[in-house]
Amino acid sequence: MTLLDIPADSGFGLANLPYGVYSVAGGPRRCATRVGDVVVDLAVLLGDDDFAAGTLETFMAAGPRRWAQVREAIRAAVRADVPDAALHPVGEVTMHLPCEIADYVDFYASEHHASNLGRLFRPDNPDPLLPNWKHLPVGYHGRSSTIVVSGVDVVRPCGQRKGPNDPEPVFGPSVRLDIEAELGFLVGVGNDMGSSIGTGAADEHLFGAVIFNDWSARDIQAWEYVPLGPNLGKSFASSISPWVVPMAALEAARVPTPTQEPTPLPYLRMDEPWGLDIDLSVRWNGHEVSRPPYREMYWSPAQMLAHTTVNGARTRTGDIFASGTISGPGADQRGAFIELTWGGKEPVDVGGQERTFLLDGDTVTITATALGAGGERVSFGEVTASILPARC
Amino acid sequence: MTLLDIPADSGFGLANLPYGVYSVAGGPRRCATRVGDVVVDLAVLLGDDDFAAGTLETFMAAGPRRWAQVREAIRAAVRADVPDAALHPVGEVTMHLPCEIADYVDFYASEHHASNLGRLFRPDNPDPLLPNWKHLPVGYHGRSSTIVVSGVDVVRPCGQRKGPNDPEPVFGPSVRLDIEAELGFLVGVGNDMGSSIGTGAADEHLFGAVIFNDWSARDIQAWEYVPLGPNLGKSFASSISPWVVPMAALEAARVPTPTQEPTPLPYLRMDEPWGLDIDLSVRWNGHEVSRPPYREMYWSPAQMLAHTTVNGARTRTGDIFASGTISGPGADQRGAFIELTWGGKEPVDVGGQERTFLLDGDTVTITATALGAGGERVSFGEVTASILPARC
Repeated sequence: MTLLDIPADSGFGLANLPYGVYSVAGGPRRCATRVGDVVVDLAVLLGDDDFAAGTLETFMAAGPRRWAQVREAIRAAVRADVPDAALHPVGEVTMHLPCEIADYVDFYASEHHASNLGRLFRPDNPDPLLPNWKHLPVGYHGRSSTIVVSGVDVVRPCGQRKGPNDPEPVFGPSVRLDIEAELGFLVGVGNDMGSSIGTGAADEHLFGAVIFNDWSARDIQAWEYVPLGPNLGKSFASSISPWVVPMAALEAARVPTPTQEPTPLPYLRMDEPWGLDIDLSVRWNGHEVSRPPYREMYWSPAQMLAHTTVNGARTRTGDIFASGTISGPGADQRGAFIELTWGGKEPVDVGGQERTFLLDGDTVTITATALGAGGERVSFGEVTASILPARC
Repeated sequence: MTLLDIPADSGFGLANLPYGVYSVAGGPRRCATRVGDVVVDLAVLLGDDDFAAGTLETFMAAGPRRWAQVREAIRAAVRADVPDAALHPVGEVTMHLPCEIADYVDFYASEHHASNLGRLFRPDNPDPLLPNWKHLPVGYHGRSSTIVVSGVDVVRPCGQRKGPNDPEPVFGPSVRLDIEAELGFLVGVGNDMGSSIGTGAADEHLFGAVIFNDWSARDIQAWEYVPLGPNLGKSFASSISPWVVPMAALEAARVPTPTQEPTPLPYLRMDEPWGLDIDLSVRWNGHEVSRPPYREMYWSPAQMLAHTTVNGARTRTGDIFASGTISGPGADQRGAFIELTWGGKEPVDVGGQERTFLLDGDTVTITATALGAGGERVSFGEVTASILPARC
C-alpha cells in the first residue's frame, strides 16, 4: 500500500481527477485517473468493474449523479493508502482514446477567429462576420474515424488544391498544413431523436472536456469547401488529449461569456451564460507561439449542445463537439497558424527560424490549464503530435 | 421443410439475395436474406453463427472472398428444401438497421441536381456549376446517429430561418421540408489511417447499396450553411431501405458514367469508369412524382470512395456514403422537391392537390430497381416514412 504524494500545483491534484484509458506493456486497456505523475487504476482503486473495461462508455452513460458519487469516492480513496497494483508512473503507460467517438461536430465559436478569417478571405467586405454568425453557433460535422489520441503522428495529407493563379487544380501533399487549437466536449448522456437539450440542461449531459487539435490543410480546404463545407481539408486527422477533465472540475472556471448582442433566440438564451476561463498554450517545436484564451469564446458549450439538438437530432454517449479555433484579441492569442502568420504573409519566429505552415518533422504541443476548486490549478495535460511526410 | 417459390420477377429472386437484419414479435435481431415475400434467417439456413448476431458487421468486415462464398451458399440453399424455422413472411417481421453506422458522407454527384440548384440560387451566374464541381466529388460529413431504417417516422425539425426579406431570423418548424432521393453505399472492409483506396479497388471494400432519403429542411439550411456547409438542415433524420443489395447483384447494372470532361486528376481516373443503371421512383402520398435515373450520375461510387480516402482518412465497416440527390435531365426525373417545384414556385400535382414542400402527415416512399444477372429484376425494396408534426 502507498500513501500518494499529491503535489499542490501539479495540475493533477484533488481538484482535477480526470478520466482516461491506459494500458501497460501491451496489456488490456483499463480506466484510470491521474494524481500528480501517477496513473491510478480505477477498477483496483474502487473495486468497481465498470472501470475494468477498455472504455469509459458505461461510466459516461451513467449520468451526473453517478459521476458525482464516483468523483467523491476517488477523492477519498486517493487520500488513503492505495493498493500498489493500482499505481503506474505516467511515463510507463500508453494512453488511448477515452471511448469510441460517436458523432463529431466542429463549431466556429470564437468571434476573433471568425473575424480574422473574414478579414483574410473577404477583405473587401466591411463586416468580417457573415450574417448568421451572431445568431447561431455555426458548425459542421467532421470525421469521427480519424480522431486520434495525443502522440499518434499525423501523415501530411494529399489532395487537390488550386491557387487563385493556377489554371487547373493540382494534386499533391498539402503545402499549407495548419493546426486549430480547440477544446472538445464529450457527451455522456445522449438524448432521444425528436427531443432536444435546453441550455439549462447541459450539466445533465456533458461529461468532460479535452484539448482538441483540428489539423487543417488550408490549400485543400480552400478549393473544396464551396458550397458544402470542409471535407478532406480536415478529415485526415484530429488529435485529442487523453485525460478527460470532468465538467465538475471546471465549475470554478466558469465565467460569463462575452456579451451576446443581438440577444440570441430563446432556445439559445441562458439565465447566466457561462463560458470557461481556460488558458491554452501552443508550442511549435517546443517554442510557445500562442496563448489562446478560452474565456473569449462567444458561444458557450451549453449553447452549442442546445443548437445541435434543437432540430431533434439525437446525441449519444461518446459524441464530441469541438469549439472551433480559440483565438483572443491579441496577435499572440491566435489558435491557428493561418491567423498567426496572417495567411502565411507574416512568418512567426520558431526558435530562430521563420515559419508559416507546418514542415515534415514538426511537432505541435497544446496544453491547457484552468483554476479549479480552492484555487488549485487544473491541467488538461497535453495533445501533441508530429508531422510525417506525405505518402503520395 | 419447404421448397421456396421464387417468383421470377419479384425483384427478390436469385439475382438479388440482399442482406438485412430482422426481428419477429420483439425477439432478438438476426440476419436474413429475402426471397420473394419471404424473409430467410441466414443462421438457420446456413448454420453459420456470424448471422445469429443482430448486425451484419462481422460478415461485412470479412471481405469479398467470403461475400462470394456465402452468396453462392445462399443461392444453393434456397433452391433446396429450407427448414421452416428459417422462414418468415415479410409482413410479419420488423426490419432494423443492417449495422451500426460509422462515418457518413453525403456527396453531390449529379450534374443535373448541382446545375438545377445553381440556377435556383445563383441565377445571375452564367455557369450553374461552381469551379470545383467537375474536378472532385464535392461532399460533406453528415450525422450518423439519425440515420434510421425505413418505416421510422420523421418529426418535422425546428430551427432558425431567415427569408431574404426578414429583418431578423425566426425560430419555428421548418416550412420547406424536402426529400433527397439518393443511393447509399456501405463500406464492408475499411482502410488504415494514412492509406487510401484506389478507384480500381472499390470491389475489395464496398459491401452493398441501399436507397437513401436525405431529408432536408431547406429554410434552415439556407440560413445556416455559409461558410461551413449544411448542419441542422440535414442532421435531424436520414432514412435508408433495410435490404442491402450486394455489389455482386449490381454487376449486370454497371454502365459507363457520363463522359467526364475535363479529365479528372489521376487518382480519380478509371480505366472503365462504371456507374449503375438503377431506376428510382418517388411516390408522394402514393402518387409517383419523379423517376430519378441513377445512370446519369457524374461521379461513380468508386470515385467517391477514392476521393474520401485520398488524404489518408480511415474508413470503417459500417461507413456509408450517399450519392447526393439523383436527378436526370427531365423535369420528371428530379430527386428533390426543391427542384421538382423549382424552388417552390411551380407546385406539382399530388393526387389532385397542388404541393410544393412536405405537410404533416405526408408519406414519401422511394423504390429502386436494376436489371440483374440473366435479365432478372433486382429490387431495393423501399424506403418510406411519414412526417410527424414539429415539437416546438
